[in-house]
Amino acid sequence: MKRLDTRNPGFEADFASLLTAREEQGQEVHKPVAEILAAVRQKGDATLCALTEKFDRLPLTPAQLAFTADEIAAACTQVSPELMAALDVAATRIESFHKAQMPSDIRYTDDVGMTLGLRWIALDAVGLYVPGGKAAYPSSVLMNAIPARVAGVQRLAMCVPTPDGIINPLVLAAAHRAGVTEIYRVGGAQAVGAMAFGTQTIRPVDRIVGPGNAFVAEAKRQVFGHVGIDSIAGPSDVVVISDSATDPRLIALDLLAQAEHDELAQATLITPDAAFADKVTEAVTTELKTLTRTTIASASWERNGAVLVTKDLEEAITLANRLAPEHLELMVDDPEALFAKVRHAGAVFLGRFCPEAVGDYVGGPNHVLPTSRTARFASGLSVFDFMKRTTFLAGGPDALRRIGPAGVALAQAEGLEAHALSISARLDALVQTTPNA
Amino acid sequence: MKRLDTRNPGFEADFASLLTAREEQGQEVHKPVAEILAAVRQKGDATLCALTEKFDRLPLTPAQLAFTADEIAAACTQVSPELMAALDVAATRIESFHKAQMPSDIRYTDDVGMTLGLRWIALDAVGLYVPGGKAAYPSSVLMNAIPARVAGVQRLAMCVPTPDGIINPLVLAAAHRAGVTEIYRVGGAQAVGAMAFGTQTIRPVDRIVGPGNAFVAEAKRQVFGHVGIDSIAGPSDVVVISDSATDPRLIALDLLAQAEHDELAQATLITPDAAFADKVTEAVTTELKTLTRTTIASASWERNGAVLVTKDLEEAITLANRLAPEHLELMVDDPEALFAKVRHAGAVFLGRFCPEAVGDYVGGPNHVLPTSRTARFASGLSVFDFMKRTTFLAGGPDALRRIGPAGVALAQAEGLEAHALSISARLDALVQTTPNA
Repeated sequence: MKRLDTRNPGFEADFASLLTAREEQGQEVHKPVAEILAAVRQKGDATLCALTEKFDRLPLTPAQLAFTADEIAAACTQVSPELMAALDVAATRIESFHKAQMPSDIRYTDDVGMTLGLRWIALDAVGLYVPGGKAAYPSSVLMNAIPARVAGVQRLAMCVPTPDGIINPLVLAAAHRAGVTEIYRVGGAQAVGAMAFGTQTIRPVDRIVGPGNAFVAEAKRQVFGHVGIDSIAGPSDVVVISDSATDPRLIALDLLAQAEHDELAQATLITPDAAFADKVTEAVTTELKTLTRTTIASASWERNGAVLVTKDLEEAITLANRLAPEHLELMVDDPEALFAKVRHAGAVFLGRFCPEAVGDYVGGPNHVLPTSRTARFASGLSVFDFMKRTTFLAGGPDALRRIGPAGVALAQAEGLEAHALSISARLDALVQTTPNA
Repeated sequence: MKRLDTRNPGFEADFASLLTAREEQGQEVHKPVAEILAAVRQKGDATLCALTEKFDRLPLTPAQLAFTADEIAAACTQVSPELMAALDVAATRIESFHKAQMPSDIRYTDDVGMTLGLRWIALDAVGLYVPGGKAAYPSSVLMNAIPARVAGVQRLAMCVPTPDGIINPLVLAAAHRAGVTEIYRVGGAQAVGAMAFGTQTIRPVDRIVGPGNAFVAEAKRQVFGHVGIDSIAGPSDVVVISDSATDPRLIALDLLAQAEHDELAQATLITPDAAFADKVTEAVTTELKTLTRTTIASASWERNGAVLVTKDLEEAITLANRLAPEHLELMVDDPEALFAKVRHAGAVFLGRFCPEAVGDYVGGPNHVLPTSRTARFASGLSVFDFMKRTTFLAGGPDALRRIGPAGVALAQAEGLEAHALSISARLDALVQTTPNA
């Protein structure tokens, strides 16, 4: 863990290195991923089956790639009623928040008589990648799938690797609850290739979302343009801004909830109270002794954890904006006042009784959020990721008379003669005929 | 030009080849681009100057990379008053349409007492790439820059190569009118690298937009994640649906307005009238004889042009949706009825007096649109490209009591103990104390 104080002369240099510390840790996987994608594109199911046997030790025929409805129903019965109820609380709240996001079409007629606007339309088909093994989080299935269904996407295919044939039944139950229409036992770059290009069994989709390892991320990068993709997810991070009135143990647990994800995860406390910073640091050390995921959480905290002591809360929010965190907790007396000053954060949690973990599961807003400081330009997953806009322009002779000549002038200036003629020939026709076409 | 008729038995196979004909024409430029980006990142301005001398035959010092305010003002005086007025008509209409797009924040308190919502915030800084030479279109400068400024972006940097030092003054005038804050004489992958990573002279931006050649597109692909990018633009295309009541020459000019862009551009007519298709084809041949850009337009029309004869307009719109065109013209009696059935198109132009060329310049909606069938999942440029969303969640003890337990159950099921504790420790604290924190 790094501890910095804004009153120290070396602060700016240390803070700058904090901003870039976790960059460029990616493996060079361009070539193997390109080879897998080419193989999937050429040989389809045969490549999926061969690579699934190789990487997941699971021999499959093409007919076994998809989970059957019976297999999915059976998985749901394996989940306890209490968990199924919790899943439903989460799903219902996520649905509700994403319904509130649904945008409106625009249509108006302007002063020259042009009618123009834009229409939002759901994508036809979306692919959802879900990591395998321990990283197969049911909550992430809900967070990725529900916005697509709320947006109106009809076909929602999911790919999840099942190493040694093992699948978490709660993942299938979450997919079922969220309205996923197809589930395939395929992972890695090959799953991304299958969803992008299609195989004999898996029809191609229009956009692929969901987190994955370095191979999955690189595969998404390479198929971008052919299909849409979401942001490439990096390791998770949280910034907690707290005054000294919060129980230090609660802040320690919030930091560790981030640290336990991944050794590359980053948990940062910003506080104006140096003594409070000490107490939180001590509480982290205490809690780390009992956590089940202590190895991961310790590594994350030691290598990437940070405690920043500032002169006041105002300075704390300035630093938070520079960090552009994925998650930002405001554990202070008046969180709304601080929130008004937030410019760069994926999701913000206001109040001592509203920790980020609530948002991971049952808050309603999406937990798929911009990592690695990309909150500077990117947003959390939403219905907007599963819709696109078509603009339109409608006008008759009168409108063309008003704005056509300016179009002709610009087209001629750009040397695009047919563009100019396409407008001017219509203007000529209007001079020759009655303007009622 | 390919002519297909839906009543012919071979139609489906021919149409399928039409859908994929222009794919995979990209050069393999991954490695040279990676090298340029690494050099820019390491050596900054020195690399920009060296590569600008090499590729644009223009020796520059770092101090000369940026156009000065005087140079920009001088360029504006070189443009005729008529063209300046046309530029203003275009800019005013583009501003007006993009202002109409501005989204609203969301905030509500739900049935468990949680307050949640999302806030739209403009990006801090955006980079605009503008191609050099003949492809430096002033209209594209307006279309890329104005939405950013309307969205509220404060810093808008533009890079444009100036081969042999030559710049179109109308490009500088357009940038000035659109509110670009900095303009640099740099192009290619090195410009993308400079805007993504920053150099001594060019501060880094948060998102890079604008079209470019294969090197620029690959560079944008490689910096994606570090900064945001827009869609990778491919060659332009139009689908024109017309009945027999439109003057065939006008339709021919509309098709050629697309064909004159680029040999890879694709112009497609869909009509239910075979005799009308003949007349348009003849008119294209006639017009091609007199066009200044006849070599490019002829090559585009011969190689990528298409005429599809359908049994009715209903079938025409079905094929248009499968083509997912960048531009779609509806030159029919009742264009609104057809438009209601459009699912996949970047921008639609309704009515015989509303050709696509109007939208290229003075319509108002953006002319930066999804190419290469990406209208299946992508949208034209808009204010949304220059803003991001921050979601938020605020709640006190009562809300936590209602939804916290479901969160704890899911966190435990996912094996994330600190997540569960972060919630349950707060619930425990509520049991022990008065619930008024």
